[in-house]
Amino acid sequence: MKKGRQTYILDGKVYISATASIAGVDEGNGRLRDFFDFVIDESEFGCKSHEKAEIKLRKHAIESLLQNASVEADEIDAIIGGDLLNQLVPSGFSAREFDAPFCGLYSACATFGQSLATGALLLGGGAKKVICCTSSHFATAERQYRFPLELGTQPPPTAQRTVTGVGCALLTSERPKNKCPKITSFTLGKVIDMGLNDPNNMGAAMAPATYETITTHLDERGVNADYYDLIVTGDLGKLGRELLCSMLGKKYGAVKDRINDCGCMVFKEIQKCGLGGSGAGCSSLVFCSYLYKTMLEGGLKRILLVPTGAMLSKDSSLQGESIPAIAHAVAIEM
Amino acid sequence: MKKGRQTYILDGKVYISATASIAGVDEGNGRLRDFFDFVIDESEFGCKSHEKAEIKLRKHAIESLLQNASVEADEIDAIIGGDLLNQLVPSGFSAREFDAPFCGLYSACATFGQSLATGALLLGGGAKKVICCTSSHFATAERQYRFPLELGTQPPPTAQRTVTGVGCALLTSERPKNKCPKITSFTLGKVIDMGLNDPNNMGAAMAPATYETITTHLDERGVNADYYDLIVTGDLGKLGRELLCSMLGKKYGAVKDRINDCGCMVFKEIQKCGLGGSGAGCSSLVFCSYLYKTMLEGGLKRILLVPTGAMLSKDSSLQGESIPAIAHAVAIEM
Repeated sequence: MKKGRQTYILDGKVYISATASIAGVDEGNGRLRDFFDFVIDESEFGCKSHEKAEIKLRKHAIESLLQNASVEADEIDAIIGGDLLNQLVPSGFSAREFDAPFCGLYSACATFGQSLATGALLLGGGAKKVICCTSSHFATAERQYRFPLELGTQPPPTAQRTVTGVGCALLTSERPKNKCPKITSFTLGKVIDMGLNDPNNMGAAMAPATYETITTHLDERGVNADYYDLIVTGDLGKLGRELLCSMLGKKYGAVKDRINDCGCMVFKEIQKCGLGGSGAGCSSLVFCSYLYKTMLEGGLKRILLVPTGAMLSKDSSLQGESIPAIAHAVAIEM
Repeated sequence: MKKGRQTYILDGKVYISATASIAGVDEGNGRLRDFFDFVIDESEFGCKSHEKAEIKLRKHAIESLLQNASVEADEIDAIIGGDLLNQLVPSGFSAREFDAPFCGLYSACATFGQSLATGALLLGGGAKKVICCTSSHFATAERQYRFPLELGTQPPPTAQRTVTGVGCALLTSERPKNKCPKITSFTLGKVIDMGLNDPNNMGAAMAPATYETITTHLDERGVNADYYDLIVTGDLGKLGRELLCSMLGKKYGAVKDRINDCGCMVFKEIQKCGLGGSGAGCSSLVFCSYLYKTMLEGGLKRILLVPTGAMLSKDSSLQGESIPAIAHAVAIEM
């Protein structure tokens, strides 16, 4: 059922039955290490290139998910999701390993939100089991968006660090044996471009689109910000989170204790990862490990997951374009 | 309603109410020139780069569609679709011009099939008006997948020519005043990689995935190949089409007169465009002009549109990977 222009209310039959997460080396040394299913011990993961490593990471994550859920690949109605690389190579190439239909999705680092929403629509259309999977890799993203790591380029103070990791979730229309969270509604975001053009300050570029999606969601669903135990954005980083809290504060009063950001949750301060984590794998990795497990254990009952994305490419920046941004919101409740 | 593993049968409330098409210079000199809404007269379309031209082409196509359908942008529930460029820049950057939610999709040149399917799912979820839009541009695709045009590289005999063009379609859940085609079912394809690795012979790489999707669709829907007046693939080109007809012929007998390929329909022989057109804009341009208008005029009653995609990137080929392919099938009937 649709409510308002951008929000879809679901009938309660979209269960997040299982998740799997694989984290990179630095993420494994970060704040959430105890929550990951698996941490790799070197960034190439035994492959000849980082790009091949990202393909292999996805394949392993999906295999772990099937194992966690005790499901065979040929029971899966679709594998959907994306990543940050050109032509979604990690997603497409990992999907060839599984006997299941595939849909590639792209909203930059907001792709996990779009994936959960699309998965819910597929279940609404009659699918029974859908895998949502997004990923990113620090080395592949640096090479593609900025410079190859071999150049040793110094990151500016507002830079964030692309998360190396994969998070994947199994959506099912049937209630699993054990209690698990459900997707209860989602809000599709608009592309908003406020004219910022510094590709090393994504948090500021994404904050307005994030504000727009969150306020639209709350308005259209008819709830206040305190309906959710936690509103958790994708990868705004410290600066973007400050901006968002300041904007939301004007509308809803003090909300800072209810707002967090996956990018701010991954690394320890001592790791010196700039303003925090980022990447299409950031929100999926944090959701599929820490947030999901905390929900299962009763630590969180209702969250609004809002993956955030900056839709730029290296070419668009070199051609003088500003940075359009997007955020999709997904309500997840026990 | 889902039927079989990959096929979704719709309840008949997905109308393709209107389409719009913008074609490039060579496409405008091709076989379908009389069917396009608009033909540009130079490939940069007044912009400083071909990438910017592709953004502008999409913006114009969506504006034309809104005009053709007498609909305002703020009535649109979502703009969905994709293109071939890194990080879907033409799609994301053109979407910022419209006050509507956006979902980026990617199955390479099969994206138009995925877009129509996703649009149908959104309508099933309660959306009323969704725009599906895919595009490609010869110069941007050459620069990105192969070499910049300025190098004057000679294409090999099996090469196809990326179509410059945009096709967009308005899906509505309400029956429009005039009779129009409906989407009656769709089949999501699997990623299939037979180990071919020549990025200049995409037709051969895509034919097996296309065969798989078409046969799955016919099996799961329970109809024979002659149920459709036309089964029209996206961009197999002459060679890929031969391969597909030969494979289908073994299963269904003589089907060649019922099978065509959008890539084979765009250019005239005299234009020397290799084995035919290709690109994410190929199937959408041909559907949104010639095929749609022919359906409206009664020349075709039932078609199975099967956009086809090769999921490679320049990096994947340089790293020695073979070419995974995918095809999604969409049944469109009057």
